[in-house]
Amino acid sequence: MTLDLISSARAFGGEQRVYRHASSATGTPMEFSAFLPGQALRGEACPTLVYLSGLTCTWENVTTKGGYQRMAADCGLIVIAPDTSPRGEGVADDAAYDLGQGAGFYLDATEKPWAPHFRMESYIAEELPSLLLDTLPVWDTAIGITGHSMGGHGALTLAMKHPELFRTVSAFAPIVNPSTCPWGEKALSAYLGTDRAAWRHHDACALVESRGWQGDILIDQGSADGFLDEQLRPWAFDEACRKAGVPLTLRMQGGYDHSYYFVSTFLADHLEWHAERLTG
Amino acid sequence: MTLDLISSARAFGGEQRVYRHASSATGTPMEFSAFLPGQALRGEACPTLVYLSGLTCTWENVTTKGGYQRMAADCGLIVIAPDTSPRGEGVADDAAYDLGQGAGFYLDATEKPWAPHFRMESYIAEELPSLLLDTLPVWDTAIGITGHSMGGHGALTLAMKHPELFRTVSAFAPIVNPSTCPWGEKALSAYLGTDRAAWRHHDACALVESRGWQGDILIDQGSADGFLDEQLRPWAFDEACRKAGVPLTLRMQGGYDHSYYFVSTFLADHLEWHAERLTG
Repeated sequence: MTLDLISSARAFGGEQRVYRHASSATGTPMEFSAFLPGQALRGEACPTLVYLSGLTCTWENVTTKGGYQRMAADCGLIVIAPDTSPRGEGVADDAAYDLGQGAGFYLDATEKPWAPHFRMESYIAEELPSLLLDTLPVWDTAIGITGHSMGGHGALTLAMKHPELFRTVSAFAPIVNPSTCPWGEKALSAYLGTDRAAWRHHDACALVESRGWQGDILIDQGSADGFLDEQLRPWAFDEACRKAGVPLTLRMQGGYDHSYYFVSTFLADHLEWHAERLTG
Repeated sequence: MTLDLISSARAFGGEQRVYRHASSATGTPMEFSAFLPGQALRGEACPTLVYLSGLTCTWENVTTKGGYQRMAADCGLIVIAPDTSPRGEGVADDAAYDLGQGAGFYLDATEKPWAPHFRMESYIAEELPSLLLDTLPVWDTAIGITGHSMGGHGALTLAMKHPELFRTVSAFAPIVNPSTCPWGEKALSAYLGTDRAAWRHHDACALVESRGWQGDILIDQGSADGFLDEQLRPWAFDEACRKAGVPLTLRMQGGYDHSYYFVSTFLADHLEWHAERLTG
């Protein structure tokens, strides 16, 4: 596999790059951004954090609005931001913002018309890490994962399903219980079919009870988030973690909404939190 | 005058707001963003930095991509990002990106068809400060100004023309000598006519020699900026400052380009630099 470098800009003593490559998982071209701190540019193996974005986003949102590069440079952390789905003319789509392109939900679809390309679990948890390890100075035993909203769902579920790969996990305003919220019910029934038993493999609340987690978990959630009560309900994950004996720090952030102003306020904290655990 | 609050989001313990108001200077509605640190929300008078953006930008670019809110919160600094020109259907425009809407050059146009609305000097140096002082807890003797590219030109020229208002000035990759570069020659001839004597009132190199400056000046410039040799040439301002006895710190930043990755890397430094001088 080859990576095409689409752009590169010096930032905070490192480089903010964007790559494109042909993906065997999705059967489409895929793009991701990679912040390389100075240590990585000098070839040192660096701990790496994968950031999964929410509905409608691409790599661009967090890369331009997240403001994480300063802390990534300070911690010597590589930060990777993938796209949220396969895209392109031959790829199935839906007119709604919460299904199809831009809304891959980080799972491998089994249903038509999604199954051929919507294989984001295989992409994020297998192909992309393999590609990163082949091409960038990623420290192979120090990869963490985080994400926002649908990406928080992706981070939590993929970490619990691939704990040998993702050593640390945190999230921002994650969808923790997609089996029981409108965004999740719509996406899971479309991508996986109506048998709810299959949905449990993609539901953080169910997974933490069935699989547990090897470390602690950090979640930030804004109290003024307009999706809090209907879609997010982090208290369900808090309860599931208690039952599973998994130490969760759920920080309700007073007055914060669902935007990148919220994410950027706390993203540096998360980088530091991951870096401490990945290198400690 | 009344301010309409368009949006507000909690960020870094403060609030990132966007306002709209009817402008008597431009005769159009104008929008600007305002970051209010926690101190301002509690009603304390705060030092304030006005950030002027470059060609094609609105308040949105630096507000979402500049990553300055953390340092503004740390310093207790209000940060205001105005638009770069009047806009709207009744406002003159040009198909090019570097003239007309999005390219006001922070001066009062005297030529047709621009003169009726393109009055950005009156807006930034008179109407907006007056409005801010009436409505936000701006510390009236502690206002600084900075900007990027065309906005760096605006910051330098407006500071030197209004030193009683703007106590501190810095810039990122500024157009320092618009009388002699393609962007400047095009804009100044369109807005002010072909008499080059009138241009000197809007040229930082000419102004620092004729008016000097009350303090020191900080400029960051990327060495890999694609506009460096043709449009920017900061060494001309360096030479003019030497002649005028004005202490300029011109930092050539190796490998950095003209993008917001460059601006965001050094913007926190500038906030700290202004805050020290405005409150010292």
